Amino acid sequence: MATTPIFEKTTFREVMAEILQRITEGPWGPGTLLPGEVELAEEFRCSRTTMNRALREVSELGFLDRKRKAGTRVRMAPIRQARFEMPIVRAEVEKTGASYRYALVSREILAAPEWLRARMNLSVGSEVVHLVCLHSANGEAFQLEDRWINGAALPQALQQDFAAIGPNEWLVATVPFSEVEISFLASAADAITVTHLDHKLGEPVFCVERATWWQNAAITLVTLSHRRGYRMTTRY
Amino acid sequence: MATTPIFEKTTFREVMAEILQRITEGPWGPGTLLPGEVELAEEFRCSRTTMNRALREVSELGFLDRKRKAGTRVRMAPIRQARFEMPIVRAEVEKTGASYRYALVSREILAAPEWLRARMNLSVGSEVVHLVCLHSANGEAFQLEDRWINGAALPQALQQDFAAIGPNEWLVATVPFSEVEISFLASAADAITVTHLDHKLGEPVFCVERATWWQNAAITLVTLSHRRGYRMTTRY
Repeated sequence: MATTPIFEKTTFREVMAEILQRITEGPWGPGTLLPGEVELAEEFRCSRTTMNRALREVSELGFLDRKRKAGTRVRMAPIRQARFEMPIVRAEVEKTGASYRYALVSREILAAPEWLRARMNLSVGSEVVHLVCLHSANGEAFQLEDRWINGAALPQALQQDFAAIGPNEWLVATVPFSEVEISFLASAADAITVTHLDHKLGEPVFCVERATWWQNAAITLVTLSHRRGYRMTTRY
Repeated sequence: MATTPIFEKTTFREVMAEILQRITEGPWGPGTLLPGEVELAEEFRCSRTTMNRALREVSELGFLDRKRKAGTRVRMAPIRQARFEMPIVRAEVEKTGASYRYALVSREILAAPEWLRARMNLSVGSEVVHLVCLHSANGEAFQLEDRWINGAALPQALQQDFAAIGPNEWLVATVPFSEVEISFLASAADAITVTHLDHKLGEPVFCVERATWWQNAAITLVTLSHRRGYRMTTRY
């Protein structure tokens, strides 16, 4: 009967702890090029699968820079990755046990203003849909949505009245997936925020700005302004 | 000579597009329990590896909820995941081509105030290090760091003067990895922010609050306040 090789008992957590120790306490200081996976697996007496998983986890913690050809290098400064799950607002409200309500504040179709043409890369005279929507939790304003949709890229949007279904849910069902740019920022409450979100003029508002592309065409640009005290939190 | 089976030519992108179409246009509406991976691979005439990758990608787009035992289900509402890379501030400043400077504004060791004991789960009389640090880009204030470190969990912190090396870099090297809770929020500038960040009192400030645990003990709680106009952006 063959004896069980040692590596079968080495877990990826043990390997990971050893790698982290070498990185933080030496000898693998910042900039070190690590040996290959096979070589490391042999040294650590673990399977290649285990070594691969351990390296991936250490990498996800931000300590390693892995490039297919150049190999794996210890980062000069670790990068932490924060992941935020961004559910659609209805799900976010309902998760707290509150009842959700959607209301369309205004809808207009117009030629894109100059700042928007620059931001979404639209040509002069492009028709856009401009929507302002209010999302409420238990009857109180939760989020104000200020959205622009490119009518050239998404002509169906020009026909939609968005009276019953919010543009976010409509877009998710219409444009299956896309490239996204998201920014988080602190804004000063402007007139429209004051009107709908119960803020005082100039008061801090937590905003999410999201621009979406699909096959190189700008689809939509939205600013989501949140009620007082809102924070976006993640744990990992 | 054997003929090449059809599935060799089916890419995961094609499979992914078909899955997305079934989800958004039917018949796989919200809540649908999908067939198993093997069955799907047969139906789509692709390899199991291809199907696995396609399902994982669709899942990462937020459309599927995959559970080991319960199987794969179409989410009632898609969840978008936003990933933010959070480098240490020195790397963030230097990436813009600016020169980085660290300065310790204040350092004190004291018994944890009540709000902090509650937040970090500390016992009465626990010693904490309280630091205020300023990170500058080209000589201008970039980020103000207001940090608390639990002296019971990390007694070495009580000995550090943090005069030359910022606590973030010191912690990264001392506590290899940990659980983290991160919040993004919009605050109103307070006295200390006004003093160091050139804000007016009450002006919106984009803040990152981060609490860190290591082996169930609270290590540190930090609030990072950013200069005017700062936004945290990610693309994917």
